[in-house]
Amino acid sequence: MASEFGLIEHLLDQARTHPLAHPPVLGPGDDCALIAPSRPDLTWAVTTDMLVAGVHFLDRDPPFDLGWKTLAVNLSDLAAMGAMPRYVTLAAAITPDDARDTRWIDTFFSGFMACAAAYGVALIGGDTTRGPRVFSVTAMGEVAIGRALRRSGARAGDDVWISGNPGYASLGLRAKLDNISLPDTVASAADRALHHPVPRVSLGLALCDLAHSAIDVSDGLLQDLAHIARASGLVAILRSDLLPSCPIGVDPQLWQTCLLGGGDDYELAFTAPESARSAIAAFSKASGLALTRIGQMQHSAETGTISPSAVSTVQVLDAAHNPMDLAHLRAGFDHFA
Amino acid sequence: MASEFGLIEHLLDQARTHPLAHPPVLGPGDDCALIAPSRPDLTWAVTTDMLVAGVHFLDRDPPFDLGWKTLAVNLSDLAAMGAMPRYVTLAAAITPDDARDTRWIDTFFSGFMACAAAYGVALIGGDTTRGPRVFSVTAMGEVAIGRALRRSGARAGDDVWISGNPGYASLGLRAKLDNISLPDTVASAADRALHHPVPRVSLGLALCDLAHSAIDVSDGLLQDLAHIARASGLVAILRSDLLPSCPIGVDPQLWQTCLLGGGDDYELAFTAPESARSAIAAFSKASGLALTRIGQMQHSAETGTISPSAVSTVQVLDAAHNPMDLAHLRAGFDHFA
Repeated sequence: MASEFGLIEHLLDQARTHPLAHPPVLGPGDDCALIAPSRPDLTWAVTTDMLVAGVHFLDRDPPFDLGWKTLAVNLSDLAAMGAMPRYVTLAAAITPDDARDTRWIDTFFSGFMACAAAYGVALIGGDTTRGPRVFSVTAMGEVAIGRALRRSGARAGDDVWISGNPGYASLGLRAKLDNISLPDTVASAADRALHHPVPRVSLGLALCDLAHSAIDVSDGLLQDLAHIARASGLVAILRSDLLPSCPIGVDPQLWQTCLLGGGDDYELAFTAPESARSAIAAFSKASGLALTRIGQMQHSAETGTISPSAVSTVQVLDAAHNPMDLAHLRAGFDHFA
Repeated sequence: MASEFGLIEHLLDQARTHPLAHPPVLGPGDDCALIAPSRPDLTWAVTTDMLVAGVHFLDRDPPFDLGWKTLAVNLSDLAAMGAMPRYVTLAAAITPDDARDTRWIDTFFSGFMACAAAYGVALIGGDTTRGPRVFSVTAMGEVAIGRALRRSGARAGDDVWISGNPGYASLGLRAKLDNISLPDTVASAADRALHHPVPRVSLGLALCDLAHSAIDVSDGLLQDLAHIARASGLVAILRSDLLPSCPIGVDPQLWQTCLLGGGDDYELAFTAPESARSAIAAFSKASGLALTRIGQMQHSAETGTISPSAVSTVQVLDAAHNPMDLAHLRAGFDHFA
């Protein structure tokens, strides 16, 4: 299996076993793939993400989970725009050892294709090369013209919502790096969130009709909500009593750090008008996905006595409605920090 | 400039100085970019390529040229399908030193954007991360439905053509690696071909109306023509007397290796019916791009006395019309060989 073309054929044979709901006009094997929209009133949403060994994953991480996550983080970006995932390309650098003994890359690819099959995504092209392990994905999804969930769409008075269990992936990562022991149920949920993130695709599709803005919380809740607030010219005011509470047996300080500042969670934060509350609750009930209202978008002047220039774009109010000091959490995740 | 978001903003500021003929619906800065086709009768051609430090380039290579080439090799794949380049994403891993002192990445990015501006391509998204230097590009272009130049479209009797000066990039690379001295004019042409490849975009667009199949010669002429031959169920018979002749002052054996087996050239090989010869000659004259007819596509039975099973999919006939022994050149470029 030492030849590049042999390896590509070998991986494509695996890929061909997955049935496709929306096959491309032309799949892998030519200079380019060819894709056409399924309806003329749709635009393409396009996102790209790169995962590097030693930075985003460790060589000892389970390769199936890593393959799943490599695609899932890109589908999460499509979900955050309200787009239906359709097509994906995968460029992979692998070591000469990986090319000789393909067990690692086979298992990685099985995880990648399991995620593709789960969301009806077709692998339409790629590139394999020698190098340190690096995976780069570009994902394409479809969304109706004018209906995509942009960061700039939030309006004053919108509720702020968060899906699922934010903070768990970050908790899992910090616990692993710092050798912190977690209660068993928390540890397994954290491990699942870290290694097997679930892109909130059906939520994103539903939010096209319900929400004004959305983002996926991959860099930490404070930092990602700040993107929405700044793009919309507003501030996000969160209430600490509405935030997901600290799991029993976890240090509250650590929990606050993970919930507000932690990265690598792939939940959706979104803003929606009060009139959408019952529809959002109905979606939550039907899908079994927790959706938690955690605050409100406001004009910066409404924050009262604090001068606008001193107001951060995201604030968390304590029980007495005073802004908490969260300067140490605001950095979020930064690859060069 | 040590922050990831600062670096992204810094690069996007550079990108925004380029005027765009076809701006995306939504550019960089959200979870996804949004793009729409310029006409409803077009499909998207999509290609991806990854360049790794120490494999595809050396850290001492000029960064401007490297940035140009990183995009150019992807546009070459679009050209080989007859597609008009429109949009591109760039995922980049760079070292912490690159993030601190941005001169190298700035110059790289200037070269990348110079190529984007030259071909009217918009950068719609990306990713920056820490790592060894790795660049991954996905390029999207438009082509009329049913008109893309596939590898499988060649027909028996088609002429085989090659654009420009194939073999020069390979010659430049081998001369550098093996410390071979070349005549000055050859050396500068080889250096230009290696570091500043010109994607044959306008040729690809013209070939949609003239050719039956096309491929870009990035892995060597024999290997890439074999892809067309196999995909079309034919053999390609080249005539050595029609092939571009050995430049004066270059070892003929080295030239044959570079012309037929060498990689990293980005010329287009294509097949077209005899009836297209005058139009192809007219395009060549108008554009100033050499287009050389080098052989013919045939049914494998037409190759005469040699049994079909022994016939390679690409043959080169010598002056006496006997197949040359080129087994040592057939491997082409393989990252894991």
